[in-house]
Amino acid sequence: MERVFNFSAGPATLPLPVIEQAKADLPVFPGAGASIMEISHRSKTFLKILEQTQADLKSLIGVSDDYHVLFTPGGATQQFTMLAMNFLAGKKADYLHVGSWASKAMKDAGRFGTTRAAWSGKADNFVRMPGDAELDLDPEAEYVHMTSNETIQGIQFAAEPDVKGKPLFCDASSDFLCRPFDPRKYALMYAGAQKNVGPSGTAVVLLRADMLERVPANLPPLLDYKVLVENDSMYNTPSTFTIYIIGLVMKWLRDEIGGLEKMGELNRMKAAMVYDAIDNSGGFYRGHAEKAHRSIMNVTFRVGNEEQEAMFIDQAKKAGLDGLKGHRSVGGVRASIYNAMPVEGVKALCDFMAEFQRVNG
Amino acid sequence: MERVFNFSAGPATLPLPVIEQAKADLPVFPGAGASIMEISHRSKTFLKILEQTQADLKSLIGVSDDYHVLFTPGGATQQFTMLAMNFLAGKKADYLHVGSWASKAMKDAGRFGTTRAAWSGKADNFVRMPGDAELDLDPEAEYVHMTSNETIQGIQFAAEPDVKGKPLFCDASSDFLCRPFDPRKYALMYAGAQKNVGPSGTAVVLLRADMLERVPANLPPLLDYKVLVENDSMYNTPSTFTIYIIGLVMKWLRDEIGGLEKMGELNRMKAAMVYDAIDNSGGFYRGHAEKAHRSIMNVTFRVGNEEQEAMFIDQAKKAGLDGLKGHRSVGGVRASIYNAMPVEGVKALCDFMAEFQRVNG
Repeated sequence: MERVFNFSAGPATLPLPVIEQAKADLPVFPGAGASIMEISHRSKTFLKILEQTQADLKSLIGVSDDYHVLFTPGGATQQFTMLAMNFLAGKKADYLHVGSWASKAMKDAGRFGTTRAAWSGKADNFVRMPGDAELDLDPEAEYVHMTSNETIQGIQFAAEPDVKGKPLFCDASSDFLCRPFDPRKYALMYAGAQKNVGPSGTAVVLLRADMLERVPANLPPLLDYKVLVENDSMYNTPSTFTIYIIGLVMKWLRDEIGGLEKMGELNRMKAAMVYDAIDNSGGFYRGHAEKAHRSIMNVTFRVGNEEQEAMFIDQAKKAGLDGLKGHRSVGGVRASIYNAMPVEGVKALCDFMAEFQRVNG
Repeated sequence: MERVFNFSAGPATLPLPVIEQAKADLPVFPGAGASIMEISHRSKTFLKILEQTQADLKSLIGVSDDYHVLFTPGGATQQFTMLAMNFLAGKKADYLHVGSWASKAMKDAGRFGTTRAAWSGKADNFVRMPGDAELDLDPEAEYVHMTSNETIQGIQFAAEPDVKGKPLFCDASSDFLCRPFDPRKYALMYAGAQKNVGPSGTAVVLLRADMLERVPANLPPLLDYKVLVENDSMYNTPSTFTIYIIGLVMKWLRDEIGGLEKMGELNRMKAAMVYDAIDNSGGFYRGHAEKAHRSIMNVTFRVGNEEQEAMFIDQAKKAGLDGLKGHRSVGGVRASIYNAMPVEGVKALCDFMAEFQRVNG
């Protein structure tokens, strides 16, 4: 059975060598006498995987003990609530309202304090990120929350916004580890695993160590960053298989790709291929995002007329290019070209776009 | 590489046919062009798996639309908090304080109202479950919470306690689906997946539909049973791979084992083999639990003297019997013989016990 090129926005394609390794490690992980799914989270085998995964992640990003790496339940959505319980706690926070996921993050946090849009792209249908001069920051805000890449709209920050020294919190679910970044600009970064790093069900959290001093007492244990740090993400039984796969992806990023610099180069090249196909189509394909704010992870565009759009998605699927349908809230086409999407997949998409336009344009 | 007999308390051994099927479905799940880990949770392929898993679970238990089946993040520990946010909400609840996990459930819920032990086995070191006449139930309690099987102590309720018509909530993490039961006696039952049904990271929740009327407004979405029911466990991206494995385990229970009656017979037989080995050892092996309250899932016992205990665990591991060390809080030996532990594994343990006693007794 053949693998298609899978442009799904998440759960998303994983590196084939990772999937092959996972297959090889069934039904027995070497030395464990059982598969990873079946062994204690406190076994030496699993603890080694956990530590190695954290160490590889830190080394890829370039941080040491001034940051904690956590694996938390419930993905990014649970983080919307958790970060507010820990750091908003009845006070005020600024949110950069840049798209659908920023809306959700702001709404969920609003149960635990006063959240306010320091900028909103809603009136313009979320086609761009704000410039620093446009931010209306509240000096009393506990933190500023950003969404580095809006999966649904396909827009991405080119660089961190200047938040005037406030702790910067970042939902990086759909562009985590897509290129090098300066972790020290962030007090908290989190990412649902199912786009760039692994299977769904877990978020990867990067938390600056000094933030723990702000955590109030007596939060529910799984929603308390202090408890998770003190127990190294093992207050309860974590999603061990997910962490194992994340570990394999980290190794792939390091050894096969060669680190975040190389990953960034590859991703920029892949994105340029699709955006060039759009820009050179004479208006047959029309990008959603303003050019300077285009995402290198999720390319969103419209095709000819509505009938042609449905045909495009349908014929692409038949040609082995799957998951191209845009999110139901915006329509159109979305090509998610995360870290694990090979250049050949992007090339196949571009070829298909050209041929589809030739026949239907 | 050989599989050992894995007596780990959780994550625990899974049926070999399930692991083999998971291996066969990598790197491509038939018809999906990718592995289950990589496809959208809203794809037809995954939705079919989700629906089939829920249907099989309901059919095995014998419930229909009067109960909801949910897959929730964070395992049973997150349910300790979630059920209290939804159903305690500042009021009072009774807890049956029967062991280590009951303690945690009661403590975590205590952040959201008044929890009280309607009975406690603590003074006796948690060696038995209470009789109905011993329960000191509060007429004003919103619910009564029980732990059907205490994994660490190895004690299990033989039948549901009579809670005088109060909604009965049950943490069934370590004995879920181990035998037939009457689901209508429970308003809420939940189980961390990693013992009897799948990999870690998710809880399976069985919720009586009418309980939704009690859920207060404006809870955080992932901690709101109403939101999870309305979105069929897909308010966020659920742990899709875990649900897929749970689905395979449900099929195995139905088709290979033949349902919960057969599973219960097998489990009673396996447990009797180990308990007979203990009882016929002339005191060399000493069970922790009172006989009438022994768990058919977790058999806890001491061996000779402390030195012999360490030797027992060490030599057993070398003989391919892994995960026998008792929980650090009680010591001794714990043989977890969940649904997926084959009779041959139990036989091998009993043979080892006899031989160890012959040499060291």
